[in-house]
Amino acid sequence: MTEAGIGSGEWGVGNRDRKQEGAGDGEQGLRGAEGAGDANQSPKLSSPAPHTPHPTPPGRLYGLGIGPGDPELLTLKAHRILTSVPVIAYPTMESGKVLARAIVADFIRPEQIEVPMPLPFSVERSSQPYYDTAAETIAQHLTAGRDVAVLCEGDPLLYGSFMYIFNRLAGRFDTEVVPGISSTFASAAMLGVPLTYRNDVLSIMPATLDEATLRDRLAVADAAIIIKLGRHFAKVRTILDDLGLLSRALYIERATMPNQQIRPIAAMNPADVPYWALILIPSQTRPQ
Amino acid sequence: MTEAGIGSGEWGVGNRDRKQEGAGDGEQGLRGAEGAGDANQSPKLSSPAPHTPHPTPPGRLYGLGIGPGDPELLTLKAHRILTSVPVIAYPTMESGKVLARAIVADFIRPEQIEVPMPLPFSVERSSQPYYDTAAETIAQHLTAGRDVAVLCEGDPLLYGSFMYIFNRLAGRFDTEVVPGISSTFASAAMLGVPLTYRNDVLSIMPATLDEATLRDRLAVADAAIIIKLGRHFAKVRTILDDLGLLSRALYIERATMPNQQIRPIAAMNPADVPYWALILIPSQTRPQ
Repeated sequence: MTEAGIGSGEWGVGNRDRKQEGAGDGEQGLRGAEGAGDANQSPKLSSPAPHTPHPTPPGRLYGLGIGPGDPELLTLKAHRILTSVPVIAYPTMESGKVLARAIVADFIRPEQIEVPMPLPFSVERSSQPYYDTAAETIAQHLTAGRDVAVLCEGDPLLYGSFMYIFNRLAGRFDTEVVPGISSTFASAAMLGVPLTYRNDVLSIMPATLDEATLRDRLAVADAAIIIKLGRHFAKVRTILDDLGLLSRALYIERATMPNQQIRPIAAMNPADVPYWALILIPSQTRPQ
Repeated sequence: MTEAGIGSGEWGVGNRDRKQEGAGDGEQGLRGAEGAGDANQSPKLSSPAPHTPHPTPPGRLYGLGIGPGDPELLTLKAHRILTSVPVIAYPTMESGKVLARAIVADFIRPEQIEVPMPLPFSVERSSQPYYDTAAETIAQHLTAGRDVAVLCEGDPLLYGSFMYIFNRLAGRFDTEVVPGISSTFASAAMLGVPLTYRNDVLSIMPATLDEATLRDRLAVADAAIIIKLGRHFAKVRTILDDLGLLSRALYIERATMPNQQIRPIAAMNPADVPYWALILIPSQTRPQ
């Protein structure tokens, strides 16, 4: 089995051609991945074929935290790995949006192979087959000896899609996670507010939780960050009002991105709140 | 009033000479700061003296997150600012340890002015006069038109000493916070465990909390990170055991530093647990 023999040529060429066109053409990737990936082949893929005279050592899988949006918030380490790996994989939405790739677009070199991973981003459909397909495509590159960096907005292990790839491949391949700046902490920096002092407890929670759970968790947090607001904004605003937290709460969307918005909660129309918005409740403690 | 007239010459030369000697001589900085800093002068310092023909615009204050220990976990932005500002300030312990400076030692250039900020790091003594002194020294550099970067381990706004400087100076000077990789998320990466999925609530809490509060907060967290373990380790271990969380809990100290240790909790001697240790309890959720 040679490197070119397991479908990498098709992927490589296809993506090399596409990458100059910008970030919005992930659909082709799914078809490619469906063709190339087959979960039943995994035992075969995890070790070189017996007739290979000089087996290629497998590549390393990187979960690369690339931060909240500002390309300058990549770490030096993520930048080094991103610019040196032969293969870069990233989630793409069915709508064609490729946020993770857009963040690091200026760092990607033409000779790097790109692997878009189409994901449904919908609660109605199971994302399992999508992750299966993406993981197998990545596994083929790794088996062929190519290091693969999977781009992860924010931090890879905090509510990230990388974890589904991690859970499928970390047991089979050498894997390294490079932490990234989470949008939660970046939001505090953009808002310019100290988050937690000394004995404070900080809770990070998704607005998708049911109302009773959100209320209970917020009631005992010294500081809190409520992520994934979107269509849950009105529910969260009501809870904050009931708990007397509205005056401390700060709203920010798309932190550190060019279209970042910081707005008073009272001025927000719930219909206009994107998924990439969060509410931050800084600690009341203010020691000298 | 000229730049040289407000004590900056003394500071500049003094720190330029000192910086070649390595990182363990913060005491001198305090004496210098005590001599030069005087809180009563702040109104005068915050605007140029009336007879200055071409007043120098004040410098910008940066709170620079430099990450958990690995110098490669600085962001590109922190690296750019660190290597371009004329003045770098950092906390030093009375013991002489200067962790923040050690992390970025290779990036500091000889012509940069260094301002050590001695802090007591002791619950017995008030740190307020130390922060007052440090803030006034920084204010003098800012007033003289020099940008100042304050080094912050981890993220500047999360349990950081920078917040005490921020609260003293952000109202008087243009201030920018650059988020950094927190040791909390870096620990998950080093341990190689997904932290939170989908609807999970993550709580970050200091082990310094009283036993009842720790118990209550841990009981309702889907995932948790308990920081600042040190001499509170035995108390935390007992609580985790009571709550049935011990089998999920992971121990790490000095994450990403050269002397990082990952050890089983059962193997730990409470007397050997440093302040820079934490316990991570990853989510039990493991969706496909």
